[in-house]
Amino acid sequence: MISRVLAADVGRHVGERIRIAGWVHRRRELKSVTFVLVRDRTGIVQVVGVGNLPDGVTEETPVEVVGSVVDSSRAPGGCEVVDAEFTLLSERAVPGPFDLYRPTVTATLPTVLDNASVALRHPLLRARFEVASASVAGFRSVLDGLGFVETHTPKIVSSATESGATVFGIDYFGRRAYLAQSPQFYKQALVGVFERVYEVGPVFRAEPHDTARHLAQYTSLDAELGFVTDHRDVMEVLREVVAGMAGAAARLVPDAVPMVPERIPEIHFQDAQEWLARETDDDPRGEPDLAPAHERALADWAWRTHGSEFLFVTGYPMAKRPFYTHPDPERPGYSNSFDLLFRGVELVTGGQRLHRHGDYLAALRDSGADPGTYRDYLDVFSHGMPPHGGFALGLERWTARLLGLGNVRWAALFPRDLHRLTP
Amino acid sequence: MISRVLAADVGRHVGERIRIAGWVHRRRELKSVTFVLVRDRTGIVQVVGVGNLPDGVTEETPVEVVGSVVDSSRAPGGCEVVDAEFTLLSERAVPGPFDLYRPTVTATLPTVLDNASVALRHPLLRARFEVASASVAGFRSVLDGLGFVETHTPKIVSSATESGATVFGIDYFGRRAYLAQSPQFYKQALVGVFERVYEVGPVFRAEPHDTARHLAQYTSLDAELGFVTDHRDVMEVLREVVAGMAGAAARLVPDAVPMVPERIPEIHFQDAQEWLARETDDDPRGEPDLAPAHERALADWAWRTHGSEFLFVTGYPMAKRPFYTHPDPERPGYSNSFDLLFRGVELVTGGQRLHRHGDYLAALRDSGADPGTYRDYLDVFSHGMPPHGGFALGLERWTARLLGLGNVRWAALFPRDLHRLTP
Repeated sequence: MISRVLAADVGRHVGERIRIAGWVHRRRELKSVTFVLVRDRTGIVQVVGVGNLPDGVTEETPVEVVGSVVDSSRAPGGCEVVDAEFTLLSERAVPGPFDLYRPTVTATLPTVLDNASVALRHPLLRARFEVASASVAGFRSVLDGLGFVETHTPKIVSSATESGATVFGIDYFGRRAYLAQSPQFYKQALVGVFERVYEVGPVFRAEPHDTARHLAQYTSLDAELGFVTDHRDVMEVLREVVAGMAGAAARLVPDAVPMVPERIPEIHFQDAQEWLARETDDDPRGEPDLAPAHERALADWAWRTHGSEFLFVTGYPMAKRPFYTHPDPERPGYSNSFDLLFRGVELVTGGQRLHRHGDYLAALRDSGADPGTYRDYLDVFSHGMPPHGGFALGLERWTARLLGLGNVRWAALFPRDLHRLTP
Repeated sequence: MISRVLAADVGRHVGERIRIAGWVHRRRELKSVTFVLVRDRTGIVQVVGVGNLPDGVTEETPVEVVGSVVDSSRAPGGCEVVDAEFTLLSERAVPGPFDLYRPTVTATLPTVLDNASVALRHPLLRARFEVASASVAGFRSVLDGLGFVETHTPKIVSSATESGATVFGIDYFGRRAYLAQSPQFYKQALVGVFERVYEVGPVFRAEPHDTARHLAQYTSLDAELGFVTDHRDVMEVLREVVAGMAGAAARLVPDAVPMVPERIPEIHFQDAQEWLARETDDDPRGEPDLAPAHERALADWAWRTHGSEFLFVTGYPMAKRPFYTHPDPERPGYSNSFDLLFRGVELVTGGQRLHRHGDYLAALRDSGADPGTYRDYLDVFSHGMPPHGGFALGLERWTARLLGLGNVRWAALFPRDLHRLTP
């Protein structure tokens, strides 16, 4: 059997008899001739004349076509296949819930999600996930180059440590266990082993609200590194990572991808509040966090004054950061932490962590928490941990923001949320 | 501040004053001089004379050292650091449960697992996970080169589809849900979207037995591809993948890594049983599966006759394969499936899957299962799926077998099993 030629390569076989395989993307019957568009993972090939294509073959049916390639200025890719012999590779397909061959997606989000396995075949929807995949490759490539080790940590944990309110419970051989909300504690412990670690994996949040920004499972890109001076070393690595992700995505969607400045502009939380009080109708001073409208106003400022779609906000108040956050030794009440805003939305959260056992005990005491709950977590800090920090970036949020998708569910293959557990 | 030099690079700075950082690996007091070995992620540096190192500083305490590099034939790496000024980067460390500086690991598996965060710092234990990380990079690199797309699929699913007996239940916003035992159904559906997909992620098995081979969570390397002729196309891709993983691991542990033959030897299940009946004391003919002793005997045969540590066993009886397995059209009762044995143990399971909706309905009817349970899964097959197949490889099993570790728990950072839910 002659080997398969992919759609993207058909143009290199003009004058030859080739074999292609894919799905019937579109069957168009004109007065004098029938066109069949065959779609594979690399593109679309126009087949002219139906040859032996059985009657009633529907769009989405998988087929194999042997035919001859000829130049054609009217066909996609500048060539088409003639003298075709078709073989059906499966049963006639039941058409999807909307026309996959139309250039735009005519279905609503719920229709796409309910029928994801077939809806995602639409080239525009499929392409989003190719961008996500490339972005993750960019993430790894940068960190591999910086001496990070990839890890795989438990998703089943014994206590709901990070934020008790939004955790899924599991029956674990008759014991109570939980789905991990982040690899936070493991990646910190592993700094003691590898110094620099990253993980790409699912995290689980039992978010009881239904928003365009939250998923019950998402893919977290986590990194953590030791022997830092403070959070600024983490921000430098993050800048490289984001540039690597953008660069990898740019090979697929050059127009969608932002320039990542050599130095991402930054503003301290306190200065941000003062700027907001001065420049907007709001006076958020004294609030412990930024509201979404504040983030958007600051992002506008970064764009206008620095031409950057990225902005670091640093030094968030300790009161709003998790107990493992390292305080700013110069500014009481503020922390060595940061958020990275991208196009007006928080994309990454990170910072320096506490590394001394005594500091953890004090922080938990101050927060009123029971150190017993955290015993497994705290133990490693008695065994000698260097100053360290890290960050976490939600893949679906990155993809959605990069491609201008209004709802993060557009960037998840099979999203999970308050109401959705299938498909 | 002068920038940090890693242990592996110190030899390039003879005659210079440098800064290193790491853990006190060993403090050795001799009659006339004290040596401090400082360990970082790249190796160990000998510091001669304690300089200002505070009294009582214990092994595993993180330190920074500024000192001068001199040639020394007696030191690891051929050089050492003198005139040292120490800075402690944290509190004095509580020593671990065994001496991390000894060349071998003197602790038992339970001790290592109970104290993983500190025990894994032992260079021999740490190295295993660097091999695992490199192997995964090799897996991805091969598949990226073959046009596969990386995916991230749900780990929370609505029904215990693949094997009801060993599934963890979750409380999902008041509904019953389950942890995914594999991405099987998703990767098949996504063949319809991307043709070729892979996933590296956690899978969950509520294995109620405590063996050296099973974990409740492990890292599954899954791949699936469409437009195959049969399982042989899948085996060809798998051969490339295993060669890529071995090649990546060989850069770290050249002696441990097997040669992967251009063509991995193979034997049909039926022929394997006949060979076993003829050549061993056992007569397994009529059994639907191979026992571990049979796998070892066959692996010995492959090694003696083909010089291969890998062996494909093909054509397992349909009775022992999951309902989505494609039958062998030539041999009734047998399937287009395979296992890949590595050093006498099953490493990979794979095969061609059913792709016609009608075949799924018939297979489920024959198995006595309720097609209603599988509705979400089956739906995609009515929308036109090409012939396809794939495989799954357990990362921990690969690492354990590659490095000769008798228990798969040695190859998991923080293993989960019937009895172990922490750390």
